[in-house]
Amino acid sequence: MSRHLISIDDLDRAAIERVLDRAESFEEVSGREIKKVPALRGRTVVNLFYEASTRTSSSFELAAKRLSADVVSVRSTGSSIDKGESLKDTVQTLSAYDPAAIVIRSPHAGAAQLVAGWTIASVINAGDGKHEHPTQALLDVFTLRRRLGSLDGARIWIVGDVMHSRVARSDILAFRRMGARVTVCGPPTLIPRDIEALGCDAEATLNNLHEADVVYVLRMQHERMRDSFVPSLREYAARYQITSARLNPGQLLMHPGPVNRGVELSGDAIDSPQALIGEQVKAGVAVRMAVLYELLVGSPMLMAVA
Amino acid sequence: MSRHLISIDDLDRAAIERVLDRAESFEEVSGREIKKVPALRGRTVVNLFYEASTRTSSSFELAAKRLSADVVSVRSTGSSIDKGESLKDTVQTLSAYDPAAIVIRSPHAGAAQLVAGWTIASVINAGDGKHEHPTQALLDVFTLRRRLGSLDGARIWIVGDVMHSRVARSDILAFRRMGARVTVCGPPTLIPRDIEALGCDAEATLNNLHEADVVYVLRMQHERMRDSFVPSLREYAARYQITSARLNPGQLLMHPGPVNRGVELSGDAIDSPQALIGEQVKAGVAVRMAVLYELLVGSPMLMAVA
Amino acid sequence: MSRHLISIDDLDRAAIERVLDRAESFEEVSGREIKKVPALRGRTVVNLFYEASTRTSSSFELAAKRLSADVVSVRSTGSSIDKGESLKDTVQTLSAYDPAAIVIRSPHAGAAQLVAGWTIASVINAGDGKHEHPTQALLDVFTLRRRLGSLDGARIWIVGDVMHSRVARSDILAFRRMGARVTVCGPPTLIPRDIEALGCDAEATLNNLHEADVVYVLRMQHERMRDSFVPSLREYAARYQITSARLNPGQLLMHPGPVNRGVELSGDAIDSPQALIGEQVKAGVAVRMAVLYELLVGSPMLMAVA
Repeated sequence: MSRHLISIDDLDRAAIERVLDRAESFEEVSGREIKKVPALRGRTVVNLFYEASTRTSSSFELAAKRLSADVVSVRSTGSSIDKGESLKDTVQTLSAYDPAAIVIRSPHAGAAQLVAGWTIASVINAGDGKHEHPTQALLDVFTLRRRLGSLDGARIWIVGDVMHSRVARSDILAFRRMGARVTVCGPPTLIPRDIEALGCDAEATLNNLHEADVVYVLRMQHERMRDSFVPSLREYAARYQITSARLNPGQLLMHPGPVNRGVELSGDAIDSPQALIGEQVKAGVAVRMAVLYELLVGSPMLMAVA
Repeated sequence: MSRHLISIDDLDRAAIERVLDRAESFEEVSGREIKKVPALRGRTVVNLFYEASTRTSSSFELAAKRLSADVVSVRSTGSSIDKGESLKDTVQTLSAYDPAAIVIRSPHAGAAQLVAGWTIASVINAGDGKHEHPTQALLDVFTLRRRLGSLDGARIWIVGDVMHSRVARSDILAFRRMGARVTVCGPPTLIPRDIEALGCDAEATLNNLHEADVVYVLRMQHERMRDSFVPSLREYAARYQITSARLNPGQLLMHPGPVNRGVELSGDAIDSPQALIGEQVKAGVAVRMAVLYELLVGSPMLMAVA
Repeated sequence: MSRHLISIDDLDRAAIERVLDRAESFEEVSGREIKKVPALRGRTVVNLFYEASTRTSSSFELAAKRLSADVVSVRSTGSSIDKGESLKDTVQTLSAYDPAAIVIRSPHAGAAQLVAGWTIASVINAGDGKHEHPTQALLDVFTLRRRLGSLDGARIWIVGDVMHSRVARSDILAFRRMGARVTVCGPPTLIPRDIEALGCDAEATLNNLHEADVVYVLRMQHERMRDSFVPSLREYAARYQITSARLNPGQLLMHPGPVNRGVELSGDAIDSPQALIGEQVKAGVAVRMAVLYELLVGSPMLMAVA
């Protein structure tokens, strides 16, 4: 495994499997009353979040604490600090503390890659603009592997605003690497033209949704409405909202959260037993513990434990 | 003791006494140089604060840390996140981390009760709108019991804006449950009409204040002035401000903080030896440690220690 | 050593040397994989920051955590809380938790001194208005002592907005106490008239910069431009910007950060091997660990270890 996790492309299939296996063991730790192992005791993890975030930031924070690391969280939603040069200065400052890892979320695609060039810490991309969100993809694969045993041959539809979604991009890479067939579906204005280059099919309607084993619904950003990518939320919902009626029995339903109830997903679909949304969130801590562990401690201890 | 602490009504007198006894032992811990016990090691406490707070949030944070828990703090004063459905999504997300407890403060009455329906964690109400603030009441009872030995028969006046005060509501319930007689006093516009249903008397003037053993002064919210509940701060202070001159020797003075110096309390009263305000704050950490301990560890270990 | 660190004037030369020696041992700890010692286990450090800060607040937070303290961070950039009386109420509240230390940053000169009068905790000034920032000066001296062996006789130029700089004030005191000769240099509008009372010389141009062993460049606050202290950033840069061309070989370059690249410092100077900026930041954690340790544990354990 590389020193950083910037993109799913940093991981071959064996590396993904190794992270997932490790996550299984941390899932067991998280089920104990004492949810803590000493793996990173006395090491420092910096969480550097330039976008508002509840679930990802708290999930990383808790993952690091359950590994016994010391965590320093630096947040800014201000505009002055998230520009190129200031980011460099901030990273160099934080690097002087010799952190084992820097977890970075930024509104700018490529930010995590830049950070990796400025620090000797391991860098974990927690979302960089529209580019990637690899730990989300890993927890999605973890959740699916638990349900399906293997993703080989599984047909996964990703529905919604693929264009602006870092989750979609990381998921397409990860699902395909694990052997799944991926179809993206949404209004043509929200599907990138060159999407087939990523090795997936594109559909403009839900007509063939029945062929999917897994329906992965993306969050619709309200600001896309204002920018006229879709005519209205009502019209979007009429054509693309996933409801229980549109799902076949046996199809699995996923969403990265937070859900816009009544927009991309209906309430009955969210609350149906087909929905894995809660399992996805739950997998987040274990998968992020696994990523931190594999990057910072790595294979030797993997063998020692095995 | 119930699994949650939403309202003082969740506690009978024996349960309150048990929390206070436990708090006495944690007060002793807080007096040591090493202010820490391993009771909640490896367990997770989530602090979810939807209102600005310094003293309550830092008090809960420190209480959890001194019990060796891992603490994750989620804050939002934004308007989009503190609505019903978003709160549910946030709580379900945080619950996926399997926290032992969620401490919730919200501007909406009933929020803590709702949260309890959405999670398997123990829920502690750290203030929900105008409804209740039970740990404040417990620390008030703790402080008074230390001074008086027992609240049985004590006459306690609660002075000020009773109408909008969650502290008043929790205190009335707690003081009465511990055997005290409670009188509320304030401008008629700030006293709920059905206050006698809570088993206390109401007075519109301070004329009979001399009969009180304890004078508990509420914080006057400046926005009440704008809403014309009282004619002006100056007129309010003339009629209801508690000053040293208005207190008898031997009467005890309490306030939940932060004080509006010169509004509901005069400076000389705040700084008088009759004021227990500092002791109240100090009791906060020990009482919150006790509440966390009783909810999460509970009677078995109580017996083991006894 | 005094119980507080409000000003460099609290420290004689022997005390500064003791902090620096202690910092050397913590620098060694920070170089280990497990960057943690149990010195402050179970003790509480409160960080009370009334100004936005990334580097100083995270540096103190990490210093306290590497000493195993429990850290509570209270932040406010709001205007209502940072007034005199509210500060007193906040400090008294936090003091009720019996913290070992309160680290305070405030926009008001003299705030740290006031805090020291309201608490039994040790108070560390992390910057109070235009007054002082003593831990910055200590880490600057630490960095220079490592390079020069001793500051005795060293000629140090401090260049820029001396008038509004708490760093300049603390550095002048510290550098002189360690035996250096200090010259301040900048536009006359930004040099205090009575600066010679601090025992340093003043220059209005960089003409004699060649005589400096160390060039310490201050951060130019953009708001000074708006207040017409200097005609324009461009003109300021033309006359006072430190560039590689203006530096002699062998001169050392320092800056407290964050740098305004292209204003007070040119990019080539920042990135030159003469620049100690990264070493200054790195020294921050070790020096702040040392200050916490000396204030809270002090000489007995120093002897025990020696």
